[in-house]
Amino acid sequence: MPQTPPTRFAYLGPEGTFAEAALSSAVAPGEGVRRPAASVAAALAAVRAGDADVALVPLENSVEGSVPATMDGLTDGDPLVITREVFLPVSFVLAARPGTRLGDVRAVVSHPHALAQTARTLAERLPGVPTLPASSTAAAARAVAEGGSDAAVCAPIAAERYGLVPLADDVADFPGAVTRFVLVSRPGALPEPTGDDKTSLVAVVADRTGALLDVLREFAVRGISLTRIESRPTRDRLWVYSFSLDCEGHVAEARVGEALAALHRVCEDVRFLGSYPRADGRTNRPVPAEAADARFTEAGEWLARLRAGEV
Amino acid sequence: MPQTPPTRFAYLGPEGTFAEAALSSAVAPGEGVRRPAASVAAALAAVRAGDADVALVPLENSVEGSVPATMDGLTDGDPLVITREVFLPVSFVLAARPGTRLGDVRAVVSHPHALAQTARTLAERLPGVPTLPASSTAAAARAVAEGGSDAAVCAPIAAERYGLVPLADDVADFPGAVTRFVLVSRPGALPEPTGDDKTSLVAVVADRTGALLDVLREFAVRGISLTRIESRPTRDRLWVYSFSLDCEGHVAEARVGEALAALHRVCEDVRFLGSYPRADGRTNRPVPAEAADARFTEAGEWLARLRAGEV
Amino acid sequence: MPQTPPTRFAYLGPEGTFAEAALSSAVAPGEGVRRPAASVAAALAAVRAGDADVALVPLENSVEGSVPATMDGLTDGDPLVITREVFLPVSFVLAARPGTRLGDVRAVVSHPHALAQTARTLAERLPGVPTLPASSTAAAARAVAEGGSDAAVCAPIAAERYGLVPLADDVADFPGAVTRFVLVSRPGALPEPTGDDKTSLVAVVADRTGALLDVLREFAVRGISLTRIESRPTRDRLWVYSFSLDCEGHVAEARVGEALAALHRVCEDVRFLGSYPRADGRTNRPVPAEAADARFTEAGEWLARLRAGEV
Amino acid sequence: MPQTPPTRFAYLGPEGTFAEAALSSAVAPGEGVRRPAASVAAALAAVRAGDADVALVPLENSVEGSVPATMDGLTDGDPLVITREVFLPVSFVLAARPGTRLGDVRAVVSHPHALAQTARTLAERLPGVPTLPASSTAAAARAVAEGGSDAAVCAPIAAERYGLVPLADDVADFPGAVTRFVLVSRPGALPEPTGDDKTSLVAVVADRTGALLDVLREFAVRGISLTRIESRPTRDRLWVYSFSLDCEGHVAEARVGEALAALHRVCEDVRFLGSYPRADGRTNRPVPAEAADARFTEAGEWLARLRAGEV
Repeated sequence: MPQTPPTRFAYLGPEGTFAEAALSSAVAPGEGVRRPAASVAAALAAVRAGDADVALVPLENSVEGSVPATMDGLTDGDPLVITREVFLPVSFVLAARPGTRLGDVRAVVSHPHALAQTARTLAERLPGVPTLPASSTAAAARAVAEGGSDAAVCAPIAAERYGLVPLADDVADFPGAVTRFVLVSRPGALPEPTGDDKTSLVAVVADRTGALLDVLREFAVRGISLTRIESRPTRDRLWVYSFSLDCEGHVAEARVGEALAALHRVCEDVRFLGSYPRADGRTNRPVPAEAADARFTEAGEWLARLRAGEV
Repeated sequence: MPQTPPTRFAYLGPEGTFAEAALSSAVAPGEGVRRPAASVAAALAAVRAGDADVALVPLENSVEGSVPATMDGLTDGDPLVITREVFLPVSFVLAARPGTRLGDVRAVVSHPHALAQTARTLAERLPGVPTLPASSTAAAARAVAEGGSDAAVCAPIAAERYGLVPLADDVADFPGAVTRFVLVSRPGALPEPTGDDKTSLVAVVADRTGALLDVLREFAVRGISLTRIESRPTRDRLWVYSFSLDCEGHVAEARVGEALAALHRVCEDVRFLGSYPRADGRTNRPVPAEAADARFTEAGEWLARLRAGEV
Repeated sequence: MPQTPPTRFAYLGPEGTFAEAALSSAVAPGEGVRRPAASVAAALAAVRAGDADVALVPLENSVEGSVPATMDGLTDGDPLVITREVFLPVSFVLAARPGTRLGDVRAVVSHPHALAQTARTLAERLPGVPTLPASSTAAAARAVAEGGSDAAVCAPIAAERYGLVPLADDVADFPGAVTRFVLVSRPGALPEPTGDDKTSLVAVVADRTGALLDVLREFAVRGISLTRIESRPTRDRLWVYSFSLDCEGHVAEARVGEALAALHRVCEDVRFLGSYPRADGRTNRPVPAEAADARFTEAGEWLARLRAGEV
Repeated sequence: MPQTPPTRFAYLGPEGTFAEAALSSAVAPGEGVRRPAASVAAALAAVRAGDADVALVPLENSVEGSVPATMDGLTDGDPLVITREVFLPVSFVLAARPGTRLGDVRAVVSHPHALAQTARTLAERLPGVPTLPASSTAAAARAVAEGGSDAAVCAPIAAERYGLVPLADDVADFPGAVTRFVLVSRPGALPEPTGDDKTSLVAVVADRTGALLDVLREFAVRGISLTRIESRPTRDRLWVYSFSLDCEGHVAEARVGEALAALHRVCEDVRFLGSYPRADGRTNRPVPAEAADARFTEAGEWLARLRAGEV
């Protein structure tokens, strides 16, 4: 009997990063085939090339903000759509080889972003100890395991994988940080509306006064709430920006569909990045009565009667 | 051979009013059957009852503003739609029986509105001469013809019809006034779009801050210009207003249709009053590129592809 | 000892109109000197000329809408300001000389507006009986008293004054109508803010798309509710409109003052028509916290510190 | 005679970074004392502590977008203001010790951001050659000079300083990138308005529908153009965003001042980040006539007369 081949997942590697932990939280243990990618760009390229079915990449972090590589990687190149979002608490540990004590640490290694998010805590606990850059938090853990440095700032999953032990837990300067990851595929059938969905898109607007206001107005007049807005430089046009937006609702719903079609008309370019179930633990605001699908349907029928002269 | 029966016109009478002159300017001499109605309400009632096919009634005057009887007559009762607008310069004459001289005039009779529009001029030319009310400017002319008064303020057509001669032409205080009349029918096939049309409607809005702003915004986001807005009290609800609006464009056009459907969703009530060729000697503003029908069509197709997962 | 001379009131006459009743409801019996004026224009002219201190004129009616003569009379000519508003229920009676019975009535006389507001009721109670125009409801009552006609539609005060008795009470087609009168003076010290005031103004806007939207936005961004908006043709420029507006709040309050100054900047012309206590039995909506005077003051101080480099 | 002590500049170090080059382009050779700081945070802290007078730090890059450390460093902590902006073309070179040829390169070292901006070019010219992270592009150049690696991606100034020679110029994937640096001081007298200024601020808005729209509207109604908008997570409140904005104009100008005061009223928090001359080679859009200072002044005087009853 023919079998559906297992889903092939590409995630931002190497093994032991938060991305792998996010994938594990989203997909059952035995499900699919998982392969680390060297970069966000590589993970997305694997999906575009058909070498993977789904890429899991970080989109934004509650402390650091958006992840430019993902923003730009979704905006440029062949179309990809988000089919799911996953939120993962980001908890850094200071990890070392077994037997190492805090007083033994003469250098700490990690990815520059992780060093930035733990700078104050490290300065308090390891005053005067220098930091060294690594290409990822997992690479830092591996370097420590291989004896190349004394301690790494990394994810708990990386410490475990490389046989390190935590010298200190929760070393982030702002505890409680959460990273939002997205699962991304080539375009295909959309996830069904659940009543609690988000829609993502990128709009490139003309360089004129009020252009962003016009974009926001298309959502506002249709009773749609935005949950995120991020500006990004368009890389080939100096100081022209695109706006990356998440709104509440699903493109299959009338108000969202009409808003997107309106943006398609008024913006220089609109890229649809998917409609998918909301997973941040919050629920969408109630849809105003006048923006519900039933009201759109009824209004459409009324308009058809007007146009047919049946008032 | 069967013949189409002639169109039956009802107009705001009596004979000799500006309404009759407007009808004559709109309809070829031998065309149709024309009957004066005692009031705007009676003219509209004749059409509603099927006793007439078309009513010609005044909608607004460039000096006096809107005509409440017409505004309210179109808003309440069974639906009627405007199929055409006609503009007529309003030129009052001071008319008397042949042989009467200005110095002979001891009283001037006319409809109170006409007396109001000529008060300053009459005071200059006939200082101290009292004015008497009549139920219409034509009735005033007839009264003078019958010897009941010395002079009437009336339309040139009334002076002619009742055998009077002008003692003075153009006695309006604000010369150049124009009255806008509309031809009104029971709902039926709409006039074809001409590219230079107006659409009329009445919107009843909830009694809340920003309700009118929301109405205007539905037009603005779709690039539609308004040419008239008039508030009217809703007669059965104290200090709740409806708004009577004219916008550029035809309901058959996408931007106008979508705007009307949106109003139907967000307003307490919307009454469509017709789409018809503009006839005020001005042309519509250019439709912004992003609001043209072709762009709506293309955006709709794009949205359909998104929803089908074909991005 | 010197005495303040009594206030001289001019009201829309003749004696026995609703305007006199409104003045009686607003001013204590022995207070001031009251003189009827032949028209709204005459009442306003008396104040402008210094022949009267206050004019009482009708501004709008809950059934008929605004009163053009008052709207235009306040908009054109030397500045006048509203210092007070008065609401009067409009209750028409059908009045006749004592001894007359309903069956005796062969003609009904009144002002055309009053005949319009009672047309349906008269048709039911006096089918086939013709109507005759008078220059005011009070003139109609006097004409009946003098034997010139059988019955008048007039105010109860007019029936009483001319010795008539009511054949029927409350003959209005839409019962419960209310007329809003305003007391108008030459500019001078404004009434003190009461916390429940209205401000009236007239704005002339350029003939361009979105001009009215811009006007409304100046109120909306400052949390100010409108209670009335009325468009009027500007009498000397074809199809250019001015907007007559009432908003909640007093010009002495920061949000209202800033909004008016903004309109003064963006409109072709703005005429201030007064701030005065609200008297329609409703209370103003709560002022949003961010629009309260204290917040404006605090924000102004903050800005002054910024500009002084004291952040 | 007493002398003004030289200005003490702190810049994002180490020596040889683009920040040093930007400082050199902004300040004459012998002017001031310049000291590299280990991080953006350290540079800003030096100014806050009074150890430096001015910090020069990167704010955004035309390809990579905003610099989170600067955004957050200006938003949190004691107030600092931008007094000047400097734009520097970012031109990466691939630099090596004299005598090294392209074929000799077995590893390339640089800061991860620089490696990201040159990834495609490096893959073409040095296929298969691995990259190593450094804490800055200048540190990478020094590491190469000290023999620790074969080639560095760095600024021309760093190659020169450390005695390296370029193996390849302009190795950025997107040529023409520009970085915007800002000079930041403790609050004090503002730069004088030049007629072509920018104003920067951060606004924290409530978590509600339309909050951003309300912020944008305060600029739009006063005719002010935005040149940048960036959302940033507020680090201590999950998924609540602040907006970092640049607008045209100077806080000393009426329209900008009134807009800032309005934001201060309606936002949860507003931080002013300075008004300073525009230096991106573009000029501000013309100020609409109704938003010019003279019109604000005139409108303020008009309002004062209204309030004094002098209409």
